[in-house]
Amino acid sequence: MSIDTFQPERNYTENSWWVAGFTEDFSRIPVRRIFLDHAIVMYRKENGEVVALADRCAHRWAPLSEGKLDGDDIVCPYHGFRYDPRGICVHIPTQSAVPGRTKVRAYTVRESAPFVWIWMGEETPAADIPATLPWAADPNWTFVKGSLPVNCNYMLVQENVLDLTHFPHLHATTLEQPGWDTPPAELALENGRVGYRHVFDGVKLAPWQAIPTGIGSERPVKRTDWGEFVSPAIHVAGIDILDPAPVNGRTEFASRIVHATTPESPQRSHYWWCISQNYAVDDEAGKAAVKKIIDATFAQDKHLLEIIQDTILRDHQHDRAPEVSVEADRQGLQARKLLKSVLGKT
Amino acid sequence: MSIDTFQPERNYTENSWWVAGFTEDFSRIPVRRIFLDHAIVMYRKENGEVVALADRCAHRWAPLSEGKLDGDDIVCPYHGFRYDPRGICVHIPTQSAVPGRTKVRAYTVRESAPFVWIWMGEETPAADIPATLPWAADPNWTFVKGSLPVNCNYMLVQENVLDLTHFPHLHATTLEQPGWDTPPAELALENGRVGYRHVFDGVKLAPWQAIPTGIGSERPVKRTDWGEFVSPAIHVAGIDILDPAPVNGRTEFASRIVHATTPESPQRSHYWWCISQNYAVDDEAGKAAVKKIIDATFAQDKHLLEIIQDTILRDHQHDRAPEVSVEADRQGLQARKLLKSVLGKT
Amino acid sequence: MSIDTFQPERNYTENSWWVAGFTEDFSRIPVRRIFLDHAIVMYRKENGEVVALADRCAHRWAPLSEGKLDGDDIVCPYHGFRYDPRGICVHIPTQSAVPGRTKVRAYTVRESAPFVWIWMGEETPAADIPATLPWAADPNWTFVKGSLPVNCNYMLVQENVLDLTHFPHLHATTLEQPGWDTPPAELALENGRVGYRHVFDGVKLAPWQAIPTGIGSERPVKRTDWGEFVSPAIHVAGIDILDPAPVNGRTEFASRIVHATTPESPQRSHYWWCISQNYAVDDEAGKAAVKKIIDATFAQDKHLLEIIQDTILRDHQHDRAPEVSVEADRQGLQARKLLKSVLGKT
Repeated sequence: MSIDTFQPERNYTENSWWVAGFTEDFSRIPVRRIFLDHAIVMYRKENGEVVALADRCAHRWAPLSEGKLDGDDIVCPYHGFRYDPRGICVHIPTQSAVPGRTKVRAYTVRESAPFVWIWMGEETPAADIPATLPWAADPNWTFVKGSLPVNCNYMLVQENVLDLTHFPHLHATTLEQPGWDTPPAELALENGRVGYRHVFDGVKLAPWQAIPTGIGSERPVKRTDWGEFVSPAIHVAGIDILDPAPVNGRTEFASRIVHATTPESPQRSHYWWCISQNYAVDDEAGKAAVKKIIDATFAQDKHLLEIIQDTILRDHQHDRAPEVSVEADRQGLQARKLLKSVLGKT
Repeated sequence: MSIDTFQPERNYTENSWWVAGFTEDFSRIPVRRIFLDHAIVMYRKENGEVVALADRCAHRWAPLSEGKLDGDDIVCPYHGFRYDPRGICVHIPTQSAVPGRTKVRAYTVRESAPFVWIWMGEETPAADIPATLPWAADPNWTFVKGSLPVNCNYMLVQENVLDLTHFPHLHATTLEQPGWDTPPAELALENGRVGYRHVFDGVKLAPWQAIPTGIGSERPVKRTDWGEFVSPAIHVAGIDILDPAPVNGRTEFASRIVHATTPESPQRSHYWWCISQNYAVDDEAGKAAVKKIIDATFAQDKHLLEIIQDTILRDHQHDRAPEVSVEADRQGLQARKLLKSVLGKT
Repeated sequence: MSIDTFQPERNYTENSWWVAGFTEDFSRIPVRRIFLDHAIVMYRKENGEVVALADRCAHRWAPLSEGKLDGDDIVCPYHGFRYDPRGICVHIPTQSAVPGRTKVRAYTVRESAPFVWIWMGEETPAADIPATLPWAADPNWTFVKGSLPVNCNYMLVQENVLDLTHFPHLHATTLEQPGWDTPPAELALENGRVGYRHVFDGVKLAPWQAIPTGIGSERPVKRTDWGEFVSPAIHVAGIDILDPAPVNGRTEFASRIVHATTPESPQRSHYWWCISQNYAVDDEAGKAAVKKIIDATFAQDKHLLEIIQDTILRDHQHDRAPEVSVEADRQGLQARKLLKSVLGKT
């Protein structure tokens, strides 16, 4: 298969930051998660810091996630081996000596609202996390969020959000977002990154933005949609609304949309999303309405992408029909290229 | 493994006609079906003709079957690419030009009651469909039918119906068909085809034929059973009853039985059947009774064949025990030979 | 992978005795069971002897287990081939001659309460069954028992029961067995066999022994725990209690624990257990209480071992982290060595 054809293989690198979950997923109760084919246990220390260790006792493979915390340490449920947050075994109940090699791999994590990130590589992280999302912790912004496991390769999700010309088709009944019947005229490709910027001037708003902004569905506005494939782990997008004839004096309204994908395996992925907005910040009913619409929207994506994955796996052997790419795929193809160069380097 | 041992492999050829479903399975609502490891979408044009296309958009693998019809065309649910019934993309919403290679494979279909057939090969069909079943559309005949997915290789079904000496054992409690404690004395092998003919003279009828013919279960008749492995896709069989001492003047009664099998994969198959009879044509209650018996009969086959498939897969690696064939297997072995020569040619 | 790392492969030999089930599992109703990747049908003859045959008719792979018994013979449900208890086909309904090679493999079985054993090898059993369990049929003993399918390699179970230092951790809330915070000082390694013996002097009893012995939980006793990896198929263990200050004059109380494991496949196993005691023999309520505790205990083992198997399968490819073994693993490592030599010989 050529680069033009999507490949459901191990198309991810461990030497990279990946999202491990929302900050509130981690507590004093250890959880097991699968990232890049590895089982990981995660918990918080007494001071709140997040710990991530290989979820297999060095002794006999037992899941530490089934064990209990003892201070900042975690105790294996099987024979009671105790590990400190560095993954070093500090106590074996049945003997005084702990063999020096009794350790499990510890993973570097970074907490940056709304996510906890994990560096899956052997080496020291070469860089900081690819994106901070300041509005997620800003009281002037509010957000809704969700997570869904998807039985498909994570890049199917990343390519989905890089080409929003699927809005009028797949999400006509849910998102109802006007525009996107043309590909973006402008690509935001600063610093070799992959993204798009699309300005819709004189467009009306979909209900999920018309109501909370107070602009309503009748008056045309200027809407700028933009998005960036920050890394294979995360896509950050925005919707900036400019109201040319404001009723209440407010002219600017902004949303930020984050799509985080972490492979469990080549054919199964974590998908975390959150949508923030700097308006109607205290409108809980409005947030619930937005979440309902977005949940329905991403359920449509999930349904479609999982059938696509099934078809890829079936046709994979036959190698007959290469993909056809169009103008709207420019960002997606750029992302594939970027991924290819990342994979080549690791 | 030798030819004597059943092989659960890709033992089917695309350059062949296969049954895609009953005529009423296809409508203005597109359906996705898997044939020979390929995902296919099927629907009817406004004039009623059936269309079959590869169920993957040439652009990004999306299932057209999740999309909508627009006249005779089908519109991809993902980005709105529109394909005509030839599989040629005639519209891309985001640009005026359609790259010439933007097409999906179109499959030749033939509608011939009660089935729609599909030619899965790359080449133009070399021949017409292997069997027309005129009685299925003849008002002087009535029929019952059904379909069941079977988790086994399709040839297990085809060999099952080529050797009816399993009737007194597997179907003793359902079909209750007298006879078949001997293999057919006569093999109908015209034109290199594989089949059998077995005459039972002086045999009584099973309830499912005794009642609707009006002959009853007490009087002996002459019953001729015959069947033919017309192709790997279809087996056509008949039961011809001659009443030597008719009460109401009618001496001849006929049934026709069709078994159609289409592989989804080496270990999963579609199985469609129908049974027609030229008597009790308007007896709906009688038809319901026959369908109930036949459903129970084929459920017995399905249950047994799926365990057989499981055993084959387990023992497969060990290659210890070749099959033993007996006289009653002559047709089955002929069918294997025929299949082998077909596979050799494609 | 080195010998230090558990390998979820086909780590079992057919030339060995394996437990096929409890004696009461087999009757005049044939049952299908999978042992060492083979499908087996088992039933009792009219005189009560157990028969074990390959559960695939020599003719067309049909499961004899779906057929009926005819005296001591079993009749194939598909075409009625009849097999005697030696697996020799003695009747084919459709012809008088039975081809000489029409037979299915017969397996040697031994009934020895509470189990029926099966020899899976091609050759004549080289030895008698590895263990008789006389107390299981002794009216002075009573027992409780159970079975559970485990989705893991059988050696994970065998290693589990060879190292009871997991009691204070995994079974703290169920078995509540005092002691086992140290590995056994004494290894019982007579005749090259693998086992342990651990004497706890001055220990109090867990409720499941304190109550039925009448000793109670307050008074210290001398408790000797021992166990033996008799073969990859069976582990026999015992708990011998010596009451130094008996109230009712009885000083000795004994339990015997049997763990039998038979692989279905490398990743799925049968697990049969029974616990016998020579006290409170007629106390049905007490036995029910013990069974409840043991069921809960083994459910903890099953839950943990199945996650371990999952982790092994995931990490398997990466081959990064060898296991660390400690003093308490001496018996487990001995068992691996023994298994390795057994596998090397076959």
